[in-house]
Amino acid sequence: MRILVAPSGFKESLDATEVSAAIAEGAVRAVPDAVIDTAPMVDGGEGTAASLARSTGGRLVHTTVEGPVGTPVESHFAVLGGPGPRTAVVEMAAAAGLRLVPRHLRDLGRTSTYGVGTLIAAALDEGCERIIVGCGDSGTNDGGAGMLQALGVGLLDRDGAPIGRGGGELARLDRIDASGLDPRVRHTSVVLACNPFNLLTGPKGVARVFGPQKGATPEQVRCLDAALEHWGDLLSAHAGTDVRTAPGSGASGGLGAGAAAVLGARLVPRFEVLTGSLDLDRRIAEADLVITAEGAIDDQTPKGKVPAEVARRAKLQNTPVVALAGTVGRGADLNHAAGIDAILGILAAPLDLAGAIEQAVPLTADAAERVLRMILVGASLGSPGSGAPWLASPDSHRTPGAALGG
Amino acid sequence: MRILVAPSGFKESLDATEVSAAIAEGAVRAVPDAVIDTAPMVDGGEGTAASLARSTGGRLVHTTVEGPVGTPVESHFAVLGGPGPRTAVVEMAAAAGLRLVPRHLRDLGRTSTYGVGTLIAAALDEGCERIIVGCGDSGTNDGGAGMLQALGVGLLDRDGAPIGRGGGELARLDRIDASGLDPRVRHTSVVLACNPFNLLTGPKGVARVFGPQKGATPEQVRCLDAALEHWGDLLSAHAGTDVRTAPGSGASGGLGAGAAAVLGARLVPRFEVLTGSLDLDRRIAEADLVITAEGAIDDQTPKGKVPAEVARRAKLQNTPVVALAGTVGRGADLNHAAGIDAILGILAAPLDLAGAIEQAVPLTADAAERVLRMILVGASLGSPGSGAPWLASPDSHRTPGAALGG
Repeated sequence: MRILVAPSGFKESLDATEVSAAIAEGAVRAVPDAVIDTAPMVDGGEGTAASLARSTGGRLVHTTVEGPVGTPVESHFAVLGGPGPRTAVVEMAAAAGLRLVPRHLRDLGRTSTYGVGTLIAAALDEGCERIIVGCGDSGTNDGGAGMLQALGVGLLDRDGAPIGRGGGELARLDRIDASGLDPRVRHTSVVLACNPFNLLTGPKGVARVFGPQKGATPEQVRCLDAALEHWGDLLSAHAGTDVRTAPGSGASGGLGAGAAAVLGARLVPRFEVLTGSLDLDRRIAEADLVITAEGAIDDQTPKGKVPAEVARRAKLQNTPVVALAGTVGRGADLNHAAGIDAILGILAAPLDLAGAIEQAVPLTADAAERVLRMILVGASLGSPGSGAPWLASPDSHRTPGAALGG
Repeated sequence: MRILVAPSGFKESLDATEVSAAIAEGAVRAVPDAVIDTAPMVDGGEGTAASLARSTGGRLVHTTVEGPVGTPVESHFAVLGGPGPRTAVVEMAAAAGLRLVPRHLRDLGRTSTYGVGTLIAAALDEGCERIIVGCGDSGTNDGGAGMLQALGVGLLDRDGAPIGRGGGELARLDRIDASGLDPRVRHTSVVLACNPFNLLTGPKGVARVFGPQKGATPEQVRCLDAALEHWGDLLSAHAGTDVRTAPGSGASGGLGAGAAAVLGARLVPRFEVLTGSLDLDRRIAEADLVITAEGAIDDQTPKGKVPAEVARRAKLQNTPVVALAGTVGRGADLNHAAGIDAILGILAAPLDLAGAIEQAVPLTADAAERVLRMILVGASLGSPGSGAPWLASPDSHRTPGAALGG
């Protein structure tokens, strides 16, 4: 049996490489002669830069930037290896991620993407001709304003004075002065690897959809949404095109809109950008079965998360897909329509979240073993597409005394 | 697909009929045209009498007896329907179960099976010619002494005075006077449906194996074990045969030994007795797949628990067996050697035991659905016994655009 293992990382627990290894370990316990190909998947969020540096033979560049709450944070970006133009991967979460915002300072109106701009400038300093900005896991809602400020863009109030940091300040913004923008940006291909389901404004706007998850009160959500509406108007006027509801404009707290309108960045569905080097379609073609995984599988998964994307591609080749999840949440069934044939939670016994995180490696390996054992049972029943409704050969598994699956 | 659903109940949560219904519900979600046969399994413990009364068209007789701590408890036994000799099922747990022992009175040296003897007498009053005593879930460790006392057997100390209730009193026992035994017992077939792995004494004696689980301290375990050794000696002398290590002699805190030695009861492996009316082997023969379940599946399961027994029988016909469990515990892997092909925990997300118990029905149904979905994936991969290692027809599931399992 040839198995492609293509999981996401489990947030706050294991990265995709660790998840892949655990799945592979469990799978071979059940099917010792399985041929296992691991393709750890990245989604633009935490771990993306490190993972792509590793998989392309590139390197990480470490630097200190202004973090989302204004204090310095240790950050990094990747310079990829391999042929083609010199390419940087700037993971926005490494400079402005939710994890960098201390819980007592979680105020989405004040956090800033300033450090993301600093990383982009540092990548330009490294001579990169192409910059991929990975979105996801952001702790900001400033529409990318901080990033633009760091790159020299003037964001001015009615008196011509620069506004401060954070999405809340955008309500005071009067005009965008891009004359000071780092000139190297114009000669650089900037690509935002983003979830195209995320929009800047409107009923599905980023403040409304993600604000509550990231600690904003309903009143704060209303204020932030209004500020982003205003920001969207000014950005669209600046760019001469409406960026407010462009797919991906809401990525990372609206970073997508700011990057597209002022930096001329292209907003590209993240998997198109990030899995290009993985040769995923060929590897799916060589597999009998695909196993994917994510920390949680629920009604959000079909909206552009790793397991759904892997399944979408596998379905084009009609390859079965099984997904493991730390949590099988509300609406997980929707993923069956999205191409995931079966979903399995990794938990074996009553356990709290902290315990599940601590035990994630053995739980994942054991769950992979259980999946394969179940699939062996199914395989012994034969193909449902065969003449007999459930048995390839109706009596083949029924011979008394014959070893099952022998 | 024809599926036999043959689960145990989940202790403190669902009875076997409820578990069966939940599994069936989930299974048809995944395979709408599945033909599902449900065979709720009993193990002699809680719910056995009610379940067998229901499945045979018999009735429950309600009565009040002296409970394990000496206070009256509402109890019951079953009079089975159907042909053959009039048969009662006395579930020892209904008169002396652990659940009837309030937590602050959990002292295995003092609890008594007296009420079990009263139920047997009541079954004789109903004209039953055959009495099946279901063992399991006991809260006692008196070697069946209380049961014998209730049926008129004198258990006398050195002064010829009756000893009191509970296993601790057996240390003072000097002789057994069976002259007062209810004479109807001698004309009645008494069968103990017990786990043959349970022994009265020795290194695997019942006090040592189950005492700690039931709240006994190490010192109490030593005392109880010694008292049962003494009891075993006197019983063996009384019966003229060694009952101390007979298979099942340790059933229900040693009830097996007392019943065998003084009532002439036969100690029969519980599944032989209890599943006789289920016609299980024929139903396995008609199934493509067997799904069993138990509250916990662990290293104890192969020692005579429902899933292992169902698997043992299914393996004789080479039918695959999948087991669901509320908790997949330590040593669960041992069950693969016992014939269970795959095991799945029912939990979908981090949850404590109380939550798992409360959500047991939907969790079980969802887990059954997941099992079947996984098996469908396996079935689409074809039989491992076929010419191609993993595919009945190597390209059959790979036609681009064809529906999976179409």
